[in-house]
Amino acid sequence: MKLRRLGEFGLIEHLRRTTPRGHGVRVGIGDDAAWVETRTGSCLLTADLLIEGVHFNLKWTSLYALGYKTLAVNMSDIAAMGGTPAYLILSLGIPATFNTEDVDEFYQGIRSLAAKSGVALVGGDTSVAKSLFVSACLLGQTAYRPITRGGAQIGDDIYVTGTLGDSALGLKLLKRTSPARRAPRAAKFLLSRHHFPTARVRVGSTLAKEKLARAMIDISDGLLQDLSHICKASRIGAIVSEERLPLSSAYRSLAGPDGTRHALAGGEDYELLFCARRRDRSRITKLEEHTDVPITRIGTCVHARDGMTVVDRTGHRVDFRTTGYDHFKPR
Amino acid sequence: MKLRRLGEFGLIEHLRRTTPRGHGVRVGIGDDAAWVETRTGSCLLTADLLIEGVHFNLKWTSLYALGYKTLAVNMSDIAAMGGTPAYLILSLGIPATFNTEDVDEFYQGIRSLAAKSGVALVGGDTSVAKSLFVSACLLGQTAYRPITRGGAQIGDDIYVTGTLGDSALGLKLLKRTSPARRAPRAAKFLLSRHHFPTARVRVGSTLAKEKLARAMIDISDGLLQDLSHICKASRIGAIVSEERLPLSSAYRSLAGPDGTRHALAGGEDYELLFCARRRDRSRITKLEEHTDVPITRIGTCVHARDGMTVVDRTGHRVDFRTTGYDHFKPR
Repeated sequence: MKLRRLGEFGLIEHLRRTTPRGHGVRVGIGDDAAWVETRTGSCLLTADLLIEGVHFNLKWTSLYALGYKTLAVNMSDIAAMGGTPAYLILSLGIPATFNTEDVDEFYQGIRSLAAKSGVALVGGDTSVAKSLFVSACLLGQTAYRPITRGGAQIGDDIYVTGTLGDSALGLKLLKRTSPARRAPRAAKFLLSRHHFPTARVRVGSTLAKEKLARAMIDISDGLLQDLSHICKASRIGAIVSEERLPLSSAYRSLAGPDGTRHALAGGEDYELLFCARRRDRSRITKLEEHTDVPITRIGTCVHARDGMTVVDRTGHRVDFRTTGYDHFKPR
Repeated sequence: MKLRRLGEFGLIEHLRRTTPRGHGVRVGIGDDAAWVETRTGSCLLTADLLIEGVHFNLKWTSLYALGYKTLAVNMSDIAAMGGTPAYLILSLGIPATFNTEDVDEFYQGIRSLAAKSGVALVGGDTSVAKSLFVSACLLGQTAYRPITRGGAQIGDDIYVTGTLGDSALGLKLLKRTSPARRAPRAAKFLLSRHHFPTARVRVGSTLAKEKLARAMIDISDGLLQDLSHICKASRIGAIVSEERLPLSSAYRSLAGPDGTRHALAGGEDYELLFCARRRDRSRITKLEEHTDVPITRIGTCVHARDGMTVVDRTGHRVDFRTTGYDHFKPR
């Protein structure tokens, strides 16, 4: 079968099914990060690929931003398990025409986020390549039991951190408008959300420490796509209230006819999506105050047979397709 | 500065110098693997890139062999620190024209070596890419103090495991001869050494356990290139006896006018190169018997000011250039 027919998630599912779990593996292929036993404890491992022409375009992404984002997206995966990012391994395929200064700019982006997050770059590999690609692997520590995608129960609340859709709308501005039109403050905010995502490490690890989240994922492929992964792993369905989606004022002012589309299916938000018991609502509110990160209740877990639904303010079903990004499928 | 002028090792040295070491990092950039502290112990991390057209050619490498070799070369890095390979994270850039069957063949190669080595594939990332590349990260366990490249002393003996040059001569056969000429047994042996290298995990971990090796590296870029890394890190020089180089009978029968060239500078041997005290010679001999892996004393560590020398059987200097592989430099 052609990969473009199977798709990225089909391939991952295929690999998950055909790969033996292995000794010491508590969580293997198919979650945000793997959870493995070491000789004296356990740790988390995650990896992300960023390929020129697929994940980024150097026309509108600086090498500094690319470096920063490389680390941020991997940190987000560790945060989504409730862990703390610790060590980064970085492999780069670099065109031979690049200068040392280009490579330095990329590493400055890495270092700037690494320094404020307590992450150490410890190794990797470099090679010449036709176009630029970045392959990162991040080891995370975990003092508490990691939170997987499976574990949400019918009746649980569904929450997201931060605001949704900013990054995707920012990317749309980058692709379709002239630099001048990106200058206003609202546009700048969206571009900054696209280039410099914030991994919600403190929220994630507190949710793990206080056993508040029963299932968690980071939103990298769009809210609905990622919610569908939780639904599948937890064997539940979900109702999301469109009205409750947390939208930034920049998003509201610039989305226009796109409405909530980017918030529902845009991708690259790198916010946390998690499910928690109804009785823990006040504890979640306290967590929000404590961490100073917006946490919004957007829906409810329902029976698997009811599938995934988005409802508008009048209670009517919103038509959507889970059109999150799939690298192998033609767009 | 253009990267092709700086070269791969110049770039790594540049990154090593400009990267802060970071909390919990016992060995960072610049050795076979990083050695990092975890919450309750420590572990080893290594990464390798394999890029189509740079590291392999699908004309003469099967996807099965590529999978096998991907894991083997990473295991070799862990072995060179005296560790035991445990968990593999694998990221793949795959052309959209590939079939699921192609991907399966690659993973079968991975699984075949993983199963017999106790390594578990636990995660990674996949994306469409213009040409195939593989980026692997391997976590190794270590019950003993890892062996770095620095630590060899003047007067120490220099050893290698197995035989040298087989892989490079095998690759030359693949590139220059017709399939018919690769059929004889000797040629088949060399091809098998090229496609299915053996990571010397047991020798490496025993050397660490018994504190026998004072400095160690795996030979991936050619004996002399890799010996120069030990010399630099240990601040020593080295004399290597050409006559003592361990050559397979297949190599001897097919090397012809190339003589010892591939054994000295060929690359992709994935044998261990290590330095040990003179007084431990009999213990090394016992280790050889115990592990059933040939271990050959090929030289002596000398003062740094004497540099690296290869001498022939008559004691004359052999001219050589450390022409190990450098991806960024034009050949």
